[in-house]
Amino acid sequence: MCDRKYAILGTGALGGFYGAKLQQAGLDVHFLVNSDYEHVSKSGLFVESKDGDFTLAQVKAYNHVEQMPQCDVVIVALKTTQNHLLAKLLPPVVKDHGVVLVLQNGLGVEEDIAQIVTNVQIIGGLCFLCANKVGAGHICHLDYGKITLGEYHHEYQRHAMTEKMEQIADDFASAGVPIELAADLLLARWQKLVWNIPYNGLSVILNARTDQLMADGSTRRLIEQLMNEVAIGAKTSGRIIADSFIQTMLNYTLKMKPYRTSMKIDYDQRRPLEIEAIFGNPLKKAQAAGINLPQISCMYHQLQFLQQRNTQITSP
Amino acid sequence: MCDRKYAILGTGALGGFYGAKLQQAGLDVHFLVNSDYEHVSKSGLFVESKDGDFTLAQVKAYNHVEQMPQCDVVIVALKTTQNHLLAKLLPPVVKDHGVVLVLQNGLGVEEDIAQIVTNVQIIGGLCFLCANKVGAGHICHLDYGKITLGEYHHEYQRHAMTEKMEQIADDFASAGVPIELAADLLLARWQKLVWNIPYNGLSVILNARTDQLMADGSTRRLIEQLMNEVAIGAKTSGRIIADSFIQTMLNYTLKMKPYRTSMKIDYDQRRPLEIEAIFGNPLKKAQAAGINLPQISCMYHQLQFLQQRNTQITSP
Repeated sequence: MCDRKYAILGTGALGGFYGAKLQQAGLDVHFLVNSDYEHVSKSGLFVESKDGDFTLAQVKAYNHVEQMPQCDVVIVALKTTQNHLLAKLLPPVVKDHGVVLVLQNGLGVEEDIAQIVTNVQIIGGLCFLCANKVGAGHICHLDYGKITLGEYHHEYQRHAMTEKMEQIADDFASAGVPIELAADLLLARWQKLVWNIPYNGLSVILNARTDQLMADGSTRRLIEQLMNEVAIGAKTSGRIIADSFIQTMLNYTLKMKPYRTSMKIDYDQRRPLEIEAIFGNPLKKAQAAGINLPQISCMYHQLQFLQQRNTQITSP
Repeated sequence: MCDRKYAILGTGALGGFYGAKLQQAGLDVHFLVNSDYEHVSKSGLFVESKDGDFTLAQVKAYNHVEQMPQCDVVIVALKTTQNHLLAKLLPPVVKDHGVVLVLQNGLGVEEDIAQIVTNVQIIGGLCFLCANKVGAGHICHLDYGKITLGEYHHEYQRHAMTEKMEQIADDFASAGVPIELAADLLLARWQKLVWNIPYNGLSVILNARTDQLMADGSTRRLIEQLMNEVAIGAKTSGRIIADSFIQTMLNYTLKMKPYRTSMKIDYDQRRPLEIEAIFGNPLKKAQAAGINLPQISCMYHQLQFLQQRNTQITSP
């Protein structure tokens, strides 16, 4: 189809799913694989999907970034809790004038990456994907899959769209991944936090699914209060989130199937939680503008306590 | 010693303990007993105490308030979750010109009682007591026991101390209960909330003891933020809680033995939680003055969700 080389940094549920879709569409994809390296390099990837299962018997798998070719598009598909690795992982694999595509939640990642690699285009992608890794090289795609793409420019300034982003959007579209182009990446990131902050946080703190949180009047009200606080945070970045957007998110979640959030899944599996990206960085952004977000701060501290205890206890 | 008749409404850990101490000191005490009535009327009360165990082989126990004599001092020792019963319980048992002594946490109870019984003196008491009921008529007194007494006057106006309060203080002192007299009941109630709101709330939400909450930097910070919010609430009632008071509470808790709060004990035993008295009423008081207490509100909604689920699940 084209000669763009893709690198996937982090072949978990998300990186494995989108990487497999791109390869299936004929693109040249190189996977950095951690724990599943042996299995994936021998047996490839298996995607069990609501849109139809498929197997990639052969994938280009690597367990060291130095062995990978330099790629046109490097997809950061790690959890943000692994982002301290990016300073080592990114420079060897991204081509000069290449693209780093950050498929992560939360705020602030693009700014950090701009410190690590220069002379590249950074694009942020917000994934609305419900997928789990259920075994070595085995990904289960439950629902959704859309990516909202937005370009990063210095300090999240708004900027006309570049050709590179359109190319990447075309590649994903050819792989059957629905793409939405956001003119304003930072607004898109804050908008995603409108959902992630209340549901990810409360699902862990209260040990609850989305439907349970919505069925209870108290948490239903708290969720709306939290969403309003996210909007206050967005305003400190000069981004406006309308009340109608909040109402849409609430209605959307009411209609969703009962859902265990990704943070809850991480918690249940005793993995580190993306607390800093989703809670800490928005709090810092707002604080830098002199604004407190007290309810988000409350949950931030509660989550830190729970994570600390969760990772201390060793499984029997 | 004297002919003052005391009634104890609610012979749980707190009512049973203080009632037994008063009877042991020679006062005439009448106990309203609910679930333990059969046992207590036959075998009395047994108090296992760090200050020395004692048994009262005979106590005046009642299971209907109408059978009780009218008393000079009626001690409300129910959980606040039972306060809807007071409109029925109080009028038959309190003498004209008698005293209602409210040994409960939270805000707003005296105002409600003033609607139920007139021509009485209402006194609020804040108990620093660590006691559990471990069996029928069997109370285990673990630590502390001091009561801070303050008189209630219309809308919590400050008022010179009355003779009645001094008499009651003397009765308790004669029973070996340390008494502190507060000139300002409403201030004393807000001060107690400085401790109760963070520790009771977080102990339930995070399933933790006081020492665990203090050992973790995140919850330690959140506790201080919550205490500051209580001080903001107090200010809406015209009461000033100094930062030094907050620091004293933090240091005091650091030095305490690891402690499971009373709300956590209620939660673990699937009893209703005192959410309205401790969280809801302070929030309402502040809101009436146009002030939000967002972190307390966050915990209020979280606790309502947890309580709802906790009491829905029937024990196997």
